[in-house]
Amino acid sequence: MNEPLPAGLLTDKYEFTMLAAALRGGTANRRTTFELFARGLPNGRRYGVVAGTGRFLEALPHFRFDDDACRLLAEFLDQDTVRYLRDFRFCGDIDGYAEGELYFPGSPVLSATGTFAECVVLETLSLSIFNHDTAIASAAARMVSAAKGRPLIEMGSRRTHERAAVAAARAAYVAGFAATSNLEAQRRYGIPAEGTSAHAFTMLYTRQDGPDELAAFRAQVDALGADTTLLVDTYDVTAGVVNAVAAAGTALGAVRIDSGELGVLARQVRDQLDRLGATRTRIVVSSDLDEFSIAALSAQPVDSYGIGTSLVTGSGAPTAHMVYKLVEVDGIPVQKRSSNKESRGGRKEALRLSRPTGTITEEVVHPAGRRPATTEPFRVLTTPLVRGGEVVVEPNLAVARELVASGLRSLPWEGLNLSHGDPAIPTTLIPARQPRP
Amino acid sequence: MNEPLPAGLLTDKYEFTMLAAALRGGTANRRTTFELFARGLPNGRRYGVVAGTGRFLEALPHFRFDDDACRLLAEFLDQDTVRYLRDFRFCGDIDGYAEGELYFPGSPVLSATGTFAECVVLETLSLSIFNHDTAIASAAARMVSAAKGRPLIEMGSRRTHERAAVAAARAAYVAGFAATSNLEAQRRYGIPAEGTSAHAFTMLYTRQDGPDELAAFRAQVDALGADTTLLVDTYDVTAGVVNAVAAAGTALGAVRIDSGELGVLARQVRDQLDRLGATRTRIVVSSDLDEFSIAALSAQPVDSYGIGTSLVTGSGAPTAHMVYKLVEVDGIPVQKRSSNKESRGGRKEALRLSRPTGTITEEVVHPAGRRPATTEPFRVLTTPLVRGGEVVVEPNLAVARELVASGLRSLPWEGLNLSHGDPAIPTTLIPARQPRP
Repeated sequence: MNEPLPAGLLTDKYEFTMLAAALRGGTANRRTTFELFARGLPNGRRYGVVAGTGRFLEALPHFRFDDDACRLLAEFLDQDTVRYLRDFRFCGDIDGYAEGELYFPGSPVLSATGTFAECVVLETLSLSIFNHDTAIASAAARMVSAAKGRPLIEMGSRRTHERAAVAAARAAYVAGFAATSNLEAQRRYGIPAEGTSAHAFTMLYTRQDGPDELAAFRAQVDALGADTTLLVDTYDVTAGVVNAVAAAGTALGAVRIDSGELGVLARQVRDQLDRLGATRTRIVVSSDLDEFSIAALSAQPVDSYGIGTSLVTGSGAPTAHMVYKLVEVDGIPVQKRSSNKESRGGRKEALRLSRPTGTITEEVVHPAGRRPATTEPFRVLTTPLVRGGEVVVEPNLAVARELVASGLRSLPWEGLNLSHGDPAIPTTLIPARQPRP
Repeated sequence: MNEPLPAGLLTDKYEFTMLAAALRGGTANRRTTFELFARGLPNGRRYGVVAGTGRFLEALPHFRFDDDACRLLAEFLDQDTVRYLRDFRFCGDIDGYAEGELYFPGSPVLSATGTFAECVVLETLSLSIFNHDTAIASAAARMVSAAKGRPLIEMGSRRTHERAAVAAARAAYVAGFAATSNLEAQRRYGIPAEGTSAHAFTMLYTRQDGPDELAAFRAQVDALGADTTLLVDTYDVTAGVVNAVAAAGTALGAVRIDSGELGVLARQVRDQLDRLGATRTRIVVSSDLDEFSIAALSAQPVDSYGIGTSLVTGSGAPTAHMVYKLVEVDGIPVQKRSSNKESRGGRKEALRLSRPTGTITEEVVHPAGRRPATTEPFRVLTTPLVRGGEVVVEPNLAVARELVASGLRSLPWEGLNLSHGDPAIPTTLIPARQPRP
């Protein structure tokens, strides 16, 4: 729906003024590597989950400038620069972590190598995609692990920008959510969409003498079948459950509770459903849930969770704080020395060490092409994504989901703690040959 | 760039299953009013700023379903419902607060009146737009007021979804920001875009024997003129300022400091620039600024602020928590009774009372068409936005900006406090004739 559009202007102006200065200064064709990474994990998290790789690779061929865009560019750029952008096509190489891979502070999540000109202009678009999608997936993975196998439904579209909502649904699915409420996410990415009704539908069945919840439920069952989910908390939960079973019979698919003390209500409703013979009717809860409240509900008879606001806002960390930094120029490692914002020079790759049991123990970031010897089991994290401008991997959400699941299984037990703490494993950085001061 | 596309699928699935049930149940054509409002302000804020109205009114005619969308809908909807959506066009009336208006808990920010069918399906799209844009504008207005007249540049595109970034730039501009880094925001909305260079450009000028900041600055000045902004903190700020003036002369437009103790550095750099004769060179600071750090810098010689992460994430409140609730059916006020999520029935309008000095004192929300008598000066807040499906207002960002500015001037002094507190003015709700229980 929006992918075929040119994405070139989704960019900070300074990328193009830098390009103009480099073209004029004769430095635009220097061979460079830019690295996308996070200096830390947000909010005392123990791990992060890389997401957005597939969306970035899809957007890359659309990083173009149509006539309309070129008219705008010509307002502040010289003719040479506008001509360069009119013909733009990224022809370099990109390596990176696969979508769904865990990451830690300093992990070289993406690494773009090519001319300064073609790499520098990708900064804003790559960061926008990775910062958003990674923030969502990282929060979502904590919810998935807190839910201990119970399915999670993403229903946060209304709490975030209408297009970000589609990407958020995708990131949540990568992290292990079972479904989304968002139909464009189903159309665009094949993510299962779910949903039946809101309070408005129940309240629509109001007459002069008052509300008629039973009539609403009967109408819903008539249209959607007994296997539907009926929302029972518009007026009174106990009466709602009675009406629900009266309307659908004991074959009722599920009831949803969207307010109140969810744990207490879930127990009451479970007992009530069982007494009414609806022993197979499931209970869905929603209402400002996050990973902490999901964990707190683990002993209650809840069958699935609907998650909105906390998912799409990254549960307190709405952006992943990733940066995109120049690390190498014509083979020379470069780094800035700004206070608290140091970068580490040189093009890098990474691998992850583990125990023979599979539990991971350490992330090792090393100069590209110089893999260190190790006696422990390891897995190479850096994979080729783009070669000579051509995307060489096929985005696959099922593979990304499996990578998150295996990543979570590989964490040491303290890594799954929801409390604030240090990263689950340490990262060792093997420095490049030191750049001269 | 993305507005002409059909927006119908940017919607939660349950809107359409409710529609299907209502069509089948014969209730789809009941005359309804839905109200979009926030139960509270986020985070102890004193006021909020309505934004997104213009984007919503632009999106409304594109809330359509093309063949591709209808194929998806046919997978889970009956033929009648798919046919209804294929021909969909909103034909009702919408009233609401003008874009840029202040709002408080319970303010009826938007009110859609029409058939249940045509109103219910707008829930997700309207909430996505208003929740995102209002969250950004509400945070941005606090930054604008903390900056006490110094210009603010929005540069947060990289920290949020690539399309949300464009809407965020727009919302910040509504709230009073002077410019954005985002070029699509310039193309789409005419917002002034700014930006010159990042650390990467300085580091590009690295030779085997080390970095050459002066060469980088000379190249930038050569391409962009002496009036450019040079980024002086890549290696050492003091040496950076020396190099900057050496490259551009005393006509240098500005220097930017993006790390370290910004207040201390701003004073040092101001002294240094003045000693070097660059007395008219401005100082721009950036680096994780929010309204609190802007306020803390008010006594320092800073000329403008660049704001990124905190702006696009709503400075701790990334969503405005607005809801869209059915409040009236065939003239009968309706409301739900869910714990802590009560709605107030009946179609509403609002006005705002003030002292003769212009300082506002109270928000009055009253049943539509029944404006209360008052002896105090007042302003009517509810305005017609759509009549019979036709948008009857012309979105105008300049007008919205002026509305925010006059709104901030109208607040009682404690309303501009950055600390947590109560809403700046109380809201009085005049109830509808009571719906029967």
